[in-house]
Order: sequence, then structure tokens, then C-alpha cells
Amino acid sequence: MRREAERMNIDLIAALRARLGDGQVSTADAVREQHSHGEGHHAPSMPGAVVFARSTDDVAQSVALCNAHRVPLAAFGAGTSLEGHVNPPEGGISLDLSRMTDVLSVNPKDMDCRVQAGITRQLLNHTLRDTGLFFPVDPGGEATIGGMCATRASGTAAVRYGTIRENVLGLTAVLADGRVMRTGGRVRKSSTGYDLTHLLIGSEGTLGVITEVQLRLHPIPESIAAAVVQFETLSEAVATAIDILQFGVPIGRLELLDDVQMDASIRYSLLSGLRALPTLFLEFVGGPESVREQIGVVEAIVEDRGGLGFDWQTDPNQRAALWRARHHAYWACLAYRPGYSAMTTDAIVPISALGELIVGVKADIAESGLTAPIVGHVGDGNFHTIILVPPTPDGLERAWALDRKIVRRALALGGSCSGEHGVGLGKREFLTDEHDPVALDVMRVLKRTLDPNGILNPGKMLPGESR
Amino acid sequence: MRREAERMNIDLIAALRARLGDGQVSTADAVREQHSHGEGHHAPSMPGAVVFARSTDDVAQSVALCNAHRVPLAAFGAGTSLEGHVNPPEGGISLDLSRMTDVLSVNPKDMDCRVQAGITRQLLNHTLRDTGLFFPVDPGGEATIGGMCATRASGTAAVRYGTIRENVLGLTAVLADGRVMRTGGRVRKSSTGYDLTHLLIGSEGTLGVITEVQLRLHPIPESIAAAVVQFETLSEAVATAIDILQFGVPIGRLELLDDVQMDASIRYSLLSGLRALPTLFLEFVGGPESVREQIGVVEAIVEDRGGLGFDWQTDPNQRAALWRARHHAYWACLAYRPGYSAMTTDAIVPISALGELIVGVKADIAESGLTAPIVGHVGDGNFHTIILVPPTPDGLERAWALDRKIVRRALALGGSCSGEHGVGLGKREFLTDEHDPVALDVMRVLKRTLDPNGILNPGKMLPGESR
Repeated sequence: MRREAERMNIDLIAALRARLGDGQVSTADAVREQHSHGEGHHAPSMPGAVVFARSTDDVAQSVALCNAHRVPLAAFGAGTSLEGHVNPPEGGISLDLSRMTDVLSVNPKDMDCRVQAGITRQLLNHTLRDTGLFFPVDPGGEATIGGMCATRASGTAAVRYGTIRENVLGLTAVLADGRVMRTGGRVRKSSTGYDLTHLLIGSEGTLGVITEVQLRLHPIPESIAAAVVQFETLSEAVATAIDILQFGVPIGRLELLDDVQMDASIRYSLLSGLRALPTLFLEFVGGPESVREQIGVVEAIVEDRGGLGFDWQTDPNQRAALWRARHHAYWACLAYRPGYSAMTTDAIVPISALGELIVGVKADIAESGLTAPIVGHVGDGNFHTIILVPPTPDGLERAWALDRKIVRRALALGGSCSGEHGVGLGKREFLTDEHDPVALDVMRVLKRTLDPNGILNPGKMLPGESR
Repeated sequence: MRREAERMNIDLIAALRARLGDGQVSTADAVREQHSHGEGHHAPSMPGAVVFARSTDDVAQSVALCNAHRVPLAAFGAGTSLEGHVNPPEGGISLDLSRMTDVLSVNPKDMDCRVQAGITRQLLNHTLRDTGLFFPVDPGGEATIGGMCATRASGTAAVRYGTIRENVLGLTAVLADGRVMRTGGRVRKSSTGYDLTHLLIGSEGTLGVITEVQLRLHPIPESIAAAVVQFETLSEAVATAIDILQFGVPIGRLELLDDVQMDASIRYSLLSGLRALPTLFLEFVGGPESVREQIGVVEAIVEDRGGLGFDWQTDPNQRAALWRARHHAYWACLAYRPGYSAMTTDAIVPISALGELIVGVKADIAESGLTAPIVGHVGDGNFHTIILVPPTPDGLERAWALDRKIVRRALALGGSCSGEHGVGLGKREFLTDEHDPVALDVMRVLKRTLDPNGILNPGKMLPGESR
């Protein structure tokens, strides 16, 4: 720890304190430790100091000072990153935006709002509760909107509402030199200028620090129904999902849990009447007639595909219980093997290849001897293998090995190493295989052009890219 | 013309002929004249030669040669641009991609396809006709997919299916130095790497030449119904549109025609039973129950908002006749004032400001003494004023003046000068007002970094940017 503190530029911290006030700059060990990691298994690394920003101007001043002192910085939101995005491997400043939680404006007629980047989805939706509108992108954890933008997040509702990418109209970001840039606007669409909004989304804090976001909102559906259907085989479950999409059913959510995950979830969430078999969790949203019609279409597909019964409900309590079980999948896994930790993969393939991929992955899991339930956003072709890491000396190594095997399989099937968690520290090594070399070269050129001193979240995303 | 030919690098044309063959390179006056303009009112300018590419490799060779000779090039597709995108103001090469019409792959299970950039939407949908799928983005004209990507096009179906931006999964583009870059892939979503796909979309050929596109497809709706409703006032029509969106009706199309446009369309398309009043054209898509339910909700909204009756039909012939009238709005305008030409504006604002904007625009039109029907994608807040340009010496000047006034009004209301037509030559002067100066500076930096010799469509989009 002393080494990090030494490496840290004492002048910079003094300048930050002078500019922002002592209350917004901390070098306390406990605070630095909390900012040394996200929720993944990547080695933590201590920042030299943590700056708590309250405004875009605070961020701009901090970044400008870091740039002047050539000290790196990593933005920090809720710390829910699974791929080490928030870890500062080279030390420097952790720039905490979690106090930037203001809803700056809500425009009900235009169904949009503007928020500070540190607000969580949950707090935003709480604030919106009387408008009849909501923000649908739901990555599971209590992530901040800024973090979701930076990692191009999505979640269970993406099959209906799109990912964060489709739900951001514009944003404010601080560039490496401390300048404040405003992109996009409030209009639904525009054909003027380069799409800087989407250049920032998914850039993982390496091109700028996102401080404000203009979001699209959606009307809360009039009617919501939930259903569960079980299958003897995984391929029947996947074929059913493909049919549902091809029939144009505007499904609200479409999730797949494999037999192992179901075993864990049945135990944890006390799901009665369900067996440890491949299972689809479905949600139908829309007007009541539309929902009834969707259920009818899906029921016919399920019957055709050999589904074992089809149970649906509109009762809010039962619906909530079902989806709570889905949302608690991760905790169910942890309870399944007490004392183990969980490492979550994030592979994605074209949906036509999903069945083949999961069959291969299950063989890999069996060969590894590990327990690894599978749960996924089948409508997007994206799924998570929740690898349960044994508390043994070789546990983490075995889990990494399985994780890497799964990624290789997905890439071989035309997929991506990450559907929604991002690259961070954890997936850098795969970018060379996943992306065209010219595209990767252009990414590097953009990074060097927009951050010539390499201060913005160095060592993340681009393989071999460091200061 | 001789001057352009002289400016042209004779060596370059010889090299192009040697590389691509004589049949793919033309310096004929008629061919060059055809490639000197799009469909807008911008002054034509002759390219020194026209190259007809058949493959990505042809494009790569041509761009590399242009770059080596420091000769500018502008891509050309169907030539339907309204803002001078295809005009080569500095001469050089017109790179015609209209022979690149292959559908390279169709994946029905994944609901995607890959096409060469020169294919038109109509030809693509014709090719897809037996798959049950279609490509929904419909900008009206017989545009190519590549041109639609380059200008970030949309059209009447964007309110339901999104613009081209939401329907492209990846693409192949040739960079300024002739290197071929492949971006994105076939997965629905990915959180890895900078979003180069969307950096290219809307870049108007200034960062690269798009040669192939991976497109999302959608299931053809089971049921389609059309409706028309008229109002005494424009603000009632706009308020109705806002309500429809806020009630969460998944409307297929939602178009507004003002009293003047209706007068023109009633005459041209012989619409019986309709009056020259502000009118909404609606399309409902989905399952039959869903469509019935949507119609019920909209009927109640219309009644509440003072709509003058509500007439809907599922009969394909009557439906087609209605929407043909909408699609022929432009031709109806031309027939309305024989001998006049038409200049089309493309302003967009947040929908809450649309009523105010159109009222202001109608006052501007009255003051101008010109005839200018209004038709628009009200669901997106985007509308076109079809300014009928008198065949008088000052006609064009008066039309430009009105066009500019409309843009200024839209910008003052937080809008954009172009919802879907792009910037090209025509809207450059507004970018300084519309975009944040730092964002505009980053755009210039990106342009110079990716095209250091300024050969890619110089003089377009960025104000004051030339070689």
C-alpha cells in the first residue's frame, strides 16, 4: 500500500483537495480498498486516492488535473463490474460518481429524462413511479446508469426493449483533457454528425468519463403475465425460443435455465411443481388482449415443441415469485455449494448456434468436474455459466480454464466473448480473435487520438494497450 | 467540363482502368453527368471519372489508388440523396456501388442477412419474400442499403422498428488508405470493443466506404390494419399522436399530413370522403387480437381529442390505396403546382415541441407567399415541408430562405436540422449551432485521423472542412 501511495503524485492529491475540498478526496485505506475491485475475481489494486465527484464540473476538474499530472484514473459507480473495469491496475485516482444521483429532468410527453451518471436504475425507476413511465434496461445488479453505458449493459428485458445502446439519446462526457463534451440530444433520431454517443457507450471509461445521460423511457405495460415451461432437452427449449421470436411474438422476457440451475433455484426459491429440467421463464407484456393472444401463440408453439405443460399467471404475487426466482439465480447458485464463490461467463452467439454451444459447454463442465449452472437471455443468444469456484488452491485456476474454454467455443460459432458484461481486464485476450485486425487497429488509433497520455482507465479493453 | 478532366489525375484513371478493366471505369460525359448530383437542389459538379465497383475488393483498390494519387472520391448508390451527398464538388472519382446488389447470406433462424451495399430495400425484400421475414426501414425512395447506412436513414416505419441504426448488426467498410475493415458481427448485442459500426453509420462516406451490411430482419406481421382520422386543428392531431405513444400502443406507422398536403393528396390520389384538414394516417400491425385492441385504444383517444370520425380497414386493397396516397405525397405536391419543383425540409424536434414548431412553420410559409405542404413522421417528431419552388428567377432563393427559417425554428426548440436526410452539402452551416463545440471538434479530429489526406467525400457534413 505504501508503494501505491508513493507512486501517487502527492502534488496531484494536494491539487485535488485544493480544488474540490477535503471532503471529496479520500486517501483512507478502507475507502481505497473498497475502490480496488468490482465483483469479479480479478486481482484488486489500490488507487492512490478516491475522488467523490458531485457534478460534471468536479469530474472535469479531476480529469484535467490527472491529465496534467499524467496520473491514470478509473471511474467508479456502484462497483458491480464483473470484469475488473473499476480496478486501477496502475494505481492513480478512482473517480467515484456514486454521489451524482440527480434526475435532472423528466419529459413525460417525450418519454425521456436526463440523469446524472451515478444514479442506479432502481432509484431512477423509483423517481419515475408517478409518471406511468419506466426505464427498462435491467442488468440485474444495482448498477449505475453511467456504468451501464460504459459497459454497454443489457439484461432480461433487452429482447423487448433493446439494450442500453438503444435507450440512450445523448450524453455528457469528460474527455481526457478535461473538456466537457455533450453528444446527441433530445430528439428520437437525427442524421447529423458522427455518432459520438455510441462511440462512448461501451468504451469502458477509456475514451471519456460519462457524467450525464439522456434516456428513453417507456410506458409501463397495462398487462403483464408470466409463464414457465419445462422441456426434456435443452434443444427443445432453444427451438421453442427461436419459434417465439420468428412468430413475431413481442415477448417481454425470455430466459433459459438449465437443469442444474433449476435444481439450485427449486431448492433456494422453494419452487413447487417444477423439476430439475431445462426451463423457459417467459413474461408477456402489452394490452390485455395482446397478452392473451401472445400466450395462445406461445402455448401452441410449446405443445408443438414437446414442452411439458405450460403454466401461466397474471396474479401479481405468483408472477413476482416466479421472476424473483429467476432474479435470485445467482444467489441460488451460491447457496447450492456453500463456501464456493461464483464466476460468471457471458458468451453470446447467433441464436441458431445456441443449442450447439450449450451442449458443448455442458460437456466442458462435465469434463472439468466443476458445478456450473446455466442461465441465460436466450432471446438474445446470450447466457451465463455460473461457475462455482471450489475453495481449494486450484479452484480459481480450474474456473478460469472453463471460462476460457466456453469463450473459445462461442468465438468458433461466430459469437462474442461478452454479451453484456464487457471486456475490462477479464476478456482482453479474446479481442484479437473476436475482432477484425483492421477494426482493432482503428480502435487503438481512436484511443491514442482521444487520450494521448493514456490516463483514462489504462490497461482495460484493448489487448496489450497500456501507458 | 474540360477543367474537371484536366484537374483529374490522368495517371489515376489509367491505373484504375489497368486494375479494374475498362468496363468498370467511365469518363463518358453522360455517365459523369448522371453522377454529378442527387435529387436535391444543390449545384451539380462533374466527377472526372466514374468507377463501377462489383466487390469490396474493387472498392478497396479504387480507394487505395485515389489515396495514393490524393484524388477525392464520393460514393454513389441510387443517387436519391436530397442533400448533395453524392455530388463531387472537388471533382475526382464517383465510386458507383449500384452493381453490388448481392444478398450474401440469409439466416432465417437468426432473422438476419448480409448484403452488398448497392442493393435497394425493394430488391432485398423481394429476395426475402419466401422467408416470412422483411427489412422494415423504409425511407420512401429506391435508396440503396449502403446509402441508407451512410445517411442514417429511417422513414415511416421507424416509430415501430427503429431507424437503420437499430437494424444494422455490423458492416464492412473500406478505409481511406484502402484497408478493408469488418465491424460488428452476427450477434444481437455485444459488449466488446468500440462501436465502429455506429461510427460509420451516418458518416456520409467521409470516414469510409460501406461495402457490405449485416441487417436485422423482422417477421412479417400476421395482421395489418390502416386507419385515417381528421382533426380541425394541427395541435389536436399532434396531441393524439403523443397520447398513442404514451399509452404504449405499438403502432406500426403514424404519419401526419397537414391541410395543404391533404388538399394535394385528395386531388392526386382521389381520396373520397376526406377533407383538406390535418390528418393522421395510422397503421396497426401484430396478431389479429392485438391489432383489434390497438384500434380500440386509439379510437378512444381520438374521440377524447376531438377527432372527426375514425375509419379503419383491414381490406388489403383499401389499405394499400390509403398508404399509396401517403407514399405519393411528394408526387401529389408536384402535381399541385405544375411546373414547380420541390425542396424538402427535414426538421425534427422532441414531439412535445412539434405542435409549436408546425404552427410557427405555417406562419413562415404564409409570410413567404410560397406553397409548402407538410407531411411527417409525427411519431418521431420529424416532418417534411415540401416547399414548392416557383419556376421564377428568385424561386430557389425564396425556397432556401424558408428552408433555413424552418431549421432555425427547430434548433431553437432543441431539435435537429435533419431527422433522416443527412447533412451533405445542404445542412453543413447548421452543425455549429446544433452540436456542442467540443463534440464538433472531436468529429473533426476523427475525420483527420481516419482520413489524413481528406480524400473521402471532402466538403460534406463538417462545416468548413475541406482538403
